[in-house]
Amino acid sequence: MYVRLHTFEVVAIDPQTKARAGILRTDHGLVETPVFMPVATQGAIKALDHRIAAALGYSILLSNTYHLYLRPGTDALRALGGLHQMIQWAGAILTDSGGFQVYSLGALRRILDDGVEFRSHIDGSRHLFTPESVIATQRAIGSDVMMSFDECVGYPCTRHDAESALQRSIRWERECLHVHQNSAPLYGFRQQLYAIIQGSVYPDLRRQSIEELCALPFDGYAIGGLAVGEPAETMYEITDFCTDLLPLDKPRYLMGVGSPANILRSIALGVDMFDCVMPTRNARNGTIFTTRGRINIRNQRFKFSHEPVEPAWNELGVEAHSLGYLRHLFVSGEILGLTLATWQNLAFYRWLVRTARQKILDGTFRQWSKEFLEQYYPEQG
Amino acid sequence: MYVRLHTFEVVAIDPQTKARAGILRTDHGLVETPVFMPVATQGAIKALDHRIAAALGYSILLSNTYHLYLRPGTDALRALGGLHQMIQWAGAILTDSGGFQVYSLGALRRILDDGVEFRSHIDGSRHLFTPESVIATQRAIGSDVMMSFDECVGYPCTRHDAESALQRSIRWERECLHVHQNSAPLYGFRQQLYAIIQGSVYPDLRRQSIEELCALPFDGYAIGGLAVGEPAETMYEITDFCTDLLPLDKPRYLMGVGSPANILRSIALGVDMFDCVMPTRNARNGTIFTTRGRINIRNQRFKFSHEPVEPAWNELGVEAHSLGYLRHLFVSGEILGLTLATWQNLAFYRWLVRTARQKILDGTFRQWSKEFLEQYYPEQG
Repeated sequence: MYVRLHTFEVVAIDPQTKARAGILRTDHGLVETPVFMPVATQGAIKALDHRIAAALGYSILLSNTYHLYLRPGTDALRALGGLHQMIQWAGAILTDSGGFQVYSLGALRRILDDGVEFRSHIDGSRHLFTPESVIATQRAIGSDVMMSFDECVGYPCTRHDAESALQRSIRWERECLHVHQNSAPLYGFRQQLYAIIQGSVYPDLRRQSIEELCALPFDGYAIGGLAVGEPAETMYEITDFCTDLLPLDKPRYLMGVGSPANILRSIALGVDMFDCVMPTRNARNGTIFTTRGRINIRNQRFKFSHEPVEPAWNELGVEAHSLGYLRHLFVSGEILGLTLATWQNLAFYRWLVRTARQKILDGTFRQWSKEFLEQYYPEQG
Repeated sequence: MYVRLHTFEVVAIDPQTKARAGILRTDHGLVETPVFMPVATQGAIKALDHRIAAALGYSILLSNTYHLYLRPGTDALRALGGLHQMIQWAGAILTDSGGFQVYSLGALRRILDDGVEFRSHIDGSRHLFTPESVIATQRAIGSDVMMSFDECVGYPCTRHDAESALQRSIRWERECLHVHQNSAPLYGFRQQLYAIIQGSVYPDLRRQSIEELCALPFDGYAIGGLAVGEPAETMYEITDFCTDLLPLDKPRYLMGVGSPANILRSIALGVDMFDCVMPTRNARNGTIFTTRGRINIRNQRFKFSHEPVEPAWNELGVEAHSLGYLRHLFVSGEILGLTLATWQNLAFYRWLVRTARQKILDGTFRQWSKEFLEQYYPEQG
């Protein structure tokens, strides 16, 4: 007899906050939560071999349905055996549904009742995403966690617009679940499906979204439509409101978040999963996150410094390169600078989240988090 | 008593060609010759962490005096403990003297009797390179093998111009040797000094260059002023002429060469050391060297191919990525594509040269080389 294990389990709850330590089960291994997922939009972390991410302890990557649908395309994805096989990644993969990307296309997209018509940002060709097509593409990708297709709204957004987008999202997400339940994975392993909670900054809409979607057997729940320009305090308030209503036994994923402070504060609100371009994009701009603070590596003051970029390099799993060398690589336009900076930032994010998890298990998360943020952001002290 | 070992030893000579297998001794380890030196102009291999080059078996890198003098500058090089320490490279380093780079500046440089005045390609600032300053910069770099400062000429070059450049080069190189013998390394390990044979395509000038420079105690001899636009056959003829005259017990380094065919044919002529941007630069343009031939990875025919880029990936020490994935990375503009292509090309070059060495030791170099080139360049068969 086949026993289907729960795909998610909470193993500890912090007594002083809503922070949780959990385990997400996929057919590509276990994922300890809270987790930060490096962004590999087109099947590659920008400037870093994902084998290095694996060596840092990352067990799940985020990739993107919209981008992979356009390039290499679903026919190539199938020919190459799905995304895991294509990129040679043994861990888990979550794919965003493309809802946020087609929303971001602005004038290039038109929202219809049954989907979104858009023009490719690459060649202007015309395409239609529907709940059914988005699940089919994620079947071709073979992601362990698929996201439902939703309609994103920006900030600010009128209550009227937020409500009509929400109704459409709920209808599309129901349909995604239906398609999911009536189709089979292509590569012999299970795929989970998460719903995305919308409702902008309106608590009653958020509540409605949660009530309708949590009545359905999704494997997890994302909080979408935040980190789109609203004040950080608003983001925390809506997140707090949502996690009070979301089921305790399902993973919560706060999409597109965020800075070290955003992540620690959201973990305290009961969020389990995060993704953000910040560590990788900032790396390529020369902004380096280290355990002693955030620095701009191009700064002249590092020119002669033989101090290691990361004092705890051994603990974090990075090379012991000096500030002076990394600065030289950036000033000289060497690609290796982008690689080493990305490596460092992802090592830091991994360290941050795995330390947070350990502190939750130890029951000291609240105090540690407070002290860490005070020393990390002294200007806000 | 301190016994100074010979810095170079020939361990085998091919009975059918002039090919040699040797060992170059440095204070940063042994280098088996023939050797190909990856180009790390500014203290980094473009798009590839040099730890991967080390893992591929590379034991010596090439870097550049001109570029490092401008950036990070000799003061920073000294503050960072020299180039080995700065880039965290445990192997050997050879530095070109900057003669070729200032020659390449064209209108930005003026050749004087005692050196070359030039303007920086970065900010237009004015600088002077002399034999003395070039050795001082290479002391600050701390390269295991320093190159003498010479005056390069292009192709074609009149006999008159070649002769006057040669006289100046010989004078400068003598002075480099004098400065070398009367100055100490900065970081506690030995630095060798090589001379550069010039004389363009004129055998009598090449002979004069060799006779004058080989009478002096340089540690090795480079053949310069080739691979600057002359026909390949001319390059082979001049190389052949030079290696007939060069001392058997000193390493011979053919600067800036070359393609797989150039390297195998020059090994047959008795050359021990090579460097070239070809494997790294071509990689970034999507030209991939593999054991089954050279390919352009952007080609549409690879879109659906799950064949590995390199069939002998395990033997060469590369990841088993598919042609389809590498093509996707290039078409999508992912930096990881540049990294994986560079990795592959340097793995191929390393395989080519270490196989050549083994065949010399086995006494089968001539036959192997002939067969390899016939199958690698079928269009020339």
